[in-house]
Amino acid sequence: MIKVVGWGVGNMGRGILEMLLKKKGIEVVGAIGRRTGVGKDIGDLLGYDNPVGIKVENDAEKVLAETRPDVVILSISSYVRGVMDEIGICARYGADVITIAEEMAYPYRTEPELSMEIDSLAKEKGITVLGTGVNPGFVLDSLIAALTYGTRSVRQIKARRVNDLSPYGRTVMEEQGVGLSEEEFLEGVRGGRIHGHVGFLQSIPMIADAIGLEYDEIIETREPIMSTVERRTDLVDILPGMTAGCSHSAVAFRNGVPVIILEHPQQVMPELEGIETGDFIDIFGDPDLHVVIRPETPGGIGTIASAVNIIPQVLSSPPGLHSMMDMSIPHCIMDDFRNHVNKGGYIREGAKRDLGKDT
Amino acid sequence: MIKVVGWGVGNMGRGILEMLLKKKGIEVVGAIGRRTGVGKDIGDLLGYDNPVGIKVENDAEKVLAETRPDVVILSISSYVRGVMDEIGICARYGADVITIAEEMAYPYRTEPELSMEIDSLAKEKGITVLGTGVNPGFVLDSLIAALTYGTRSVRQIKARRVNDLSPYGRTVMEEQGVGLSEEEFLEGVRGGRIHGHVGFLQSIPMIADAIGLEYDEIIETREPIMSTVERRTDLVDILPGMTAGCSHSAVAFRNGVPVIILEHPQQVMPELEGIETGDFIDIFGDPDLHVVIRPETPGGIGTIASAVNIIPQVLSSPPGLHSMMDMSIPHCIMDDFRNHVNKGGYIREGAKRDLGKDT
Repeated sequence: MIKVVGWGVGNMGRGILEMLLKKKGIEVVGAIGRRTGVGKDIGDLLGYDNPVGIKVENDAEKVLAETRPDVVILSISSYVRGVMDEIGICARYGADVITIAEEMAYPYRTEPELSMEIDSLAKEKGITVLGTGVNPGFVLDSLIAALTYGTRSVRQIKARRVNDLSPYGRTVMEEQGVGLSEEEFLEGVRGGRIHGHVGFLQSIPMIADAIGLEYDEIIETREPIMSTVERRTDLVDILPGMTAGCSHSAVAFRNGVPVIILEHPQQVMPELEGIETGDFIDIFGDPDLHVVIRPETPGGIGTIASAVNIIPQVLSSPPGLHSMMDMSIPHCIMDDFRNHVNKGGYIREGAKRDLGKDT
Repeated sequence: MIKVVGWGVGNMGRGILEMLLKKKGIEVVGAIGRRTGVGKDIGDLLGYDNPVGIKVENDAEKVLAETRPDVVILSISSYVRGVMDEIGICARYGADVITIAEEMAYPYRTEPELSMEIDSLAKEKGITVLGTGVNPGFVLDSLIAALTYGTRSVRQIKARRVNDLSPYGRTVMEEQGVGLSEEEFLEGVRGGRIHGHVGFLQSIPMIADAIGLEYDEIIETREPIMSTVERRTDLVDILPGMTAGCSHSAVAFRNGVPVIILEHPQQVMPELEGIETGDFIDIFGDPDLHVVIRPETPGGIGTIASAVNIIPQVLSSPPGLHSMMDMSIPHCIMDDFRNHVNKGGYIREGAKRDLGKDT
């Protein structure tokens, strides 16, 4: 069996454990938490009737030493700095790392030194490290790159991901500046408390490096989405004239011309103003391509699924820090996960390990 | 430079040569034809004002011996049997092979013995062999698999590719049964002259093996698309009551339940009856996903582009017969193709060769 430890038992971490428990060829051997849920059986955490037999522990070293997992899925932070120590611990125990930390999807631009440090450590210890998720990691970067496969040239890429923030918790509402006056929102952006989406500085370089598009600078803008109607959820009550969310976008320019334009307006209940959610991808080149995914690829479920579905590619990759663009075409897995390890062309001969190894 | 030979100078082969000539880091070192164009400079064939300096030759062995290409792009047949000898010749000269032969996109189901033969030969001679194209190879298989990345489970896949046959030549019109009475069409299907799309028996197993979906049987149907209006092109004049094309579909069943449903109605001028072309992909699972590419990913240009864009992955792959599912995420390339060789995770350490090698 592929032995997996889930590190982080927040919404995403719990969702990942739940998915792992349902998949064939995978054995959940441990769960690591900081405070919430520590000492509880993960079955209890997931609302199961019966215990699973795995308790959430807060001593990561102990869990890894005792269980020797093939891979650890890290769901504890959005930032490279927030997972550095944890990657170091996983490396010590020879466990591959999959993380949903947004910055880790393509950390080379925002954290070049730390990226090199992770890559060196991973190679030294023989582990693979990958950041993934739905966005960044897929919809606004590796999927866009894949969609250009049938084009002879690409001049400009424009993509817009319109989603609904309603399912998310209080932290997200605060980071997106929901339920404020316009002045409060702008003040929050200036102060850095309202930062919108974490991922544009990963997605743009990932696309650009993959396709070989050059750009001089990336300009990000964060604008309030002002509601003209009342929008009410369990967490916020937005009156007309208040913010429903943040329209965050990033544009990569080459000689003043926009080359990659990514827009991600995130708001609570967009349907109340007749706005349909969706992923809208336009590739301008030879030929043009217009892609619509409606409603949008779900962010939460999609990130959970991506972290689990990529396990075979990560286990089959050579040591080092990688991005989704280094992986063989990713996909959902319905049969035994072990069938997919060392299966592909690169994988078959590039494999670095046998499963079930114990060091 | 990456040295490439184009083998086949029909519509697709010429398009591939034209694209190769525009790309950085690639040197077209030879062109092989059977009859058409033999002796002519490829610039002449492509309608350029000036010669390129490469003549189409019909002695393949001589071209490969003299030019020692890194990769040969084969555009001469739709079938595995139609490229076996040519792959053998490329193997003798140590050249990797990319082919747009539809059956080669995933030849394991329809030609298991020949697939094994190609794989053994490729490994013995240290070459990589890949079949690709827009369909099969991308839109109705590897792209669908990629789109499931953010799903926790997949229950059923339904995809429909609606295109316009008008740009195609006489052979395609005949294979699709355009401009006939209903009786003539059905007679042509029974006799095997009208076969519709070549690719369902590749795409369905490719998706099913990737995701791990089981099926018991694949049922193909070919039905006439009867025109109710006049549709007139340079090649055919379709009167009301005559066939405008072939609606070809394939369904994979598991215990009587359709698991994968692929439909590819191909006709001349669908817009005359208000039919929009497009690629429509519906994934039913957890969660569902609905993707629309409108108009459809172009077949001809897309296949040309795919054969060229995949060169770095093929050069970086270990020896053997591979499919698109073994490749790292494919994409258009706008900078020097050499930047993309041995770049990815698998690729970096799995590379089998240096470019510009001479044996």
